[in-house]
Amino acid sequence: MGARRRLALLALAVALAAAAATTGHAGVTSPYRRKLEATADMPFDADVFRVPPGYNAPQQVHITLGDQTGTAMTVSWVTASELGNGTVRYGPSPDRMEMSAQGTHTRYDYFNYTSGFIHHCTLRNLKHGVKYYYAMGFGHTVRTFSFTAPPKPGPDVPFKFGLIGDLGQTFDSNSTLSHYEANGGDAVLFVGDLSYADAYPLHDNRRWDSWARFVERSVAYQPWIWTAGNHELDYAPEIGETVPFKPFTRRYRTPYRAAGSTEPLWYSVKVASAHIIVLSSYSSYGKYTPQWTWLSDELARVDRKATPWLIVLMHSPWYNSNNYHYMEGETMRVQFESWLVAAKVDIVLAGHVHSYERSRRFSNVAYNIVNGKATPVRDLDAPVYVTIGDGGNIEGIANKYVYVACLLNS
Amino acid sequence: MGARRRLALLALAVALAAAAATTGHAGVTSPYRRKLEATADMPFDADVFRVPPGYNAPQQVHITLGDQTGTAMTVSWVTASELGNGTVRYGPSPDRMEMSAQGTHTRYDYFNYTSGFIHHCTLRNLKHGVKYYYAMGFGHTVRTFSFTAPPKPGPDVPFKFGLIGDLGQTFDSNSTLSHYEANGGDAVLFVGDLSYADAYPLHDNRRWDSWARFVERSVAYQPWIWTAGNHELDYAPEIGETVPFKPFTRRYRTPYRAAGSTEPLWYSVKVASAHIIVLSSYSSYGKYTPQWTWLSDELARVDRKATPWLIVLMHSPWYNSNNYHYMEGETMRVQFESWLVAAKVDIVLAGHVHSYERSRRFSNVAYNIVNGKATPVRDLDAPVYVTIGDGGNIEGIANKYVYVACLLNS
Repeated sequence: MGARRRLALLALAVALAAAAATTGHAGVTSPYRRKLEATADMPFDADVFRVPPGYNAPQQVHITLGDQTGTAMTVSWVTASELGNGTVRYGPSPDRMEMSAQGTHTRYDYFNYTSGFIHHCTLRNLKHGVKYYYAMGFGHTVRTFSFTAPPKPGPDVPFKFGLIGDLGQTFDSNSTLSHYEANGGDAVLFVGDLSYADAYPLHDNRRWDSWARFVERSVAYQPWIWTAGNHELDYAPEIGETVPFKPFTRRYRTPYRAAGSTEPLWYSVKVASAHIIVLSSYSSYGKYTPQWTWLSDELARVDRKATPWLIVLMHSPWYNSNNYHYMEGETMRVQFESWLVAAKVDIVLAGHVHSYERSRRFSNVAYNIVNGKATPVRDLDAPVYVTIGDGGNIEGIANKYVYVACLLNS
Repeated sequence: MGARRRLALLALAVALAAAAATTGHAGVTSPYRRKLEATADMPFDADVFRVPPGYNAPQQVHITLGDQTGTAMTVSWVTASELGNGTVRYGPSPDRMEMSAQGTHTRYDYFNYTSGFIHHCTLRNLKHGVKYYYAMGFGHTVRTFSFTAPPKPGPDVPFKFGLIGDLGQTFDSNSTLSHYEANGGDAVLFVGDLSYADAYPLHDNRRWDSWARFVERSVAYQPWIWTAGNHELDYAPEIGETVPFKPFTRRYRTPYRAAGSTEPLWYSVKVASAHIIVLSSYSSYGKYTPQWTWLSDELARVDRKATPWLIVLMHSPWYNSNNYHYMEGETMRVQFESWLVAAKVDIVLAGHVHSYERSRRFSNVAYNIVNGKATPVRDLDAPVYVTIGDGGNIEGIANKYVYVACLLNS
């Protein structure tokens, strides 16, 4: 079980109540505890939101995988004053950034807000495990960053993922990010709810900008794998904004095409010893729909010999004994749970519920409307469900539980 | 109960097995029985698919409500040779079509197919209950049709709906349509799966054209209310077609904006004594999604004093004792059933299962993951579920049932 021992999962910002620990998998659970009281959002003039100096300087720099394994990396950034240069130069040292790639850009309007110039540029031909420096902003203000391309996937490749959900931009959010930085992960599996801009009047999209400036100190240097949460919907027909996920999809890219998906909200990556599947709780998943079709095909593509860990990310948890958002994920569970059990998924990571909870392995897939078999039963083929929605957002910690004996004691 | 007695529902193409009849509502159930064997699609050169004579003659003419109650009617048609004139003239007699409206047009490509010019034109300022003549094709070949605007909604207004699902374009489909015509309904509630073009290689979209020519003889003269089925998805990433519902939404309009919806796949109309809600089985319906948000708001807008009947249309049934597509609608049921019971919906009409089945009133809304209460129970607040997926499509009749005693005998 060398491969499994070497995959470290940093569950951050662990809340007050943790369910019984699972067995059979090693991991690092932090002793860190979020205090119960919510803190306020950091003010716009907080240091962490500072616009980088220099005319039209690239800001909100973030990277994510540009293909399934990290031989490509997509760099995104925003220029506020004018379009500027879309080129990214990159190479193995700051003095030898001899490769270059040309990005594309987009802008969007959201009610009374107009975004800056949002650049996306995919750096290709990277070598696994090599550190690269990259720079952009040529002609105005150049900024330089670096990342290490993920190791080549394989059954016994060490890697350390950070796990963050429901981050927001409060003082607690900053504490979570600092705590993650102090623990030194290689990449973040982010299970949705980024900026909470939608908590502001008119979904004040300046809070999308400030959030991206806040997390730049990490995500400009290592890939974060994005899952869409309900706070990414930004669906506001009352102000004429009816395109779900508009700010999120304009600002954040995912390597969905490389994963055979046709929408950015569901896809997969293969990093080190893990095959990671990202699902969308707020898209269609009924039989015959695109997400249903893709997941069916994707599970058949998983090669446990190459990537023994199979991890699924989603925003809304399927199992959750917290009374906050209780059973909100039920409808997607009904659709997909049997598939995940059949595929022997190791872990399902979700956010949404602002707490930490980890389950034993159980399933609830025998039901046929009339046989009454609708109580979860112990099932060693089933995933461990871990809720990590306690990233520090403005809504505070959820700390009330319903008694769900079968989840804890079976 | 005068209102209820006066609403006639023509359940067509009734299949071999009918479940126990509900009580408390009058209706007309046809003695007509579809034979068990499927028939073939009618050939392209069948009379029912004939292209109307004359240069660039408007073809595939169909109408649907242009607002919630029918003081507007949207006329759609296709011109094949060139764009032609988008004007529709209309008025209370063929000699006095003194009103006019200007339409818009669209075209679409689907793999190797390019559609004709698809025209949509909404006729406004109609008077309830008045017969109108309308004509289009000016400058080339003029064709004239007529319809009667629906009566003003009210609690005791007579109206006769036809109910059709899963129609297709077989010889049986033609028999279904003829049977409907012989029974003289005022409008059709169509519960999805129109053309079955997707059954052909490359989703041969010429079958969308032929289907629309086939049904023109009815739908050019009375509004059909459209529900999207799985055969409307036309999702085919293997040939690069990744926009769900592309041909359907280009060809068929719904009055969704008038119903406060932001997508054409879910909406409502108010006709005679009925408030009719159309849902989409193949769109997202998780909490916070647009369809979920709209339905929540819409149920609060229902006024049973004005429209005592509350009818919900969807494609995939929530309850179905046929083993064909058994429990495919389960995930949407889990999301929405409690709302429909709370709203005391009268009838849920679905297609998808190629058979006829009608339930008693029962519900299954007490479940909380661990209480085991997941068996349907008799509930007089619950809807009657009627499956009418036996319209005659090429897939034939589904005639095998699982034993679901509680649905029949409780």
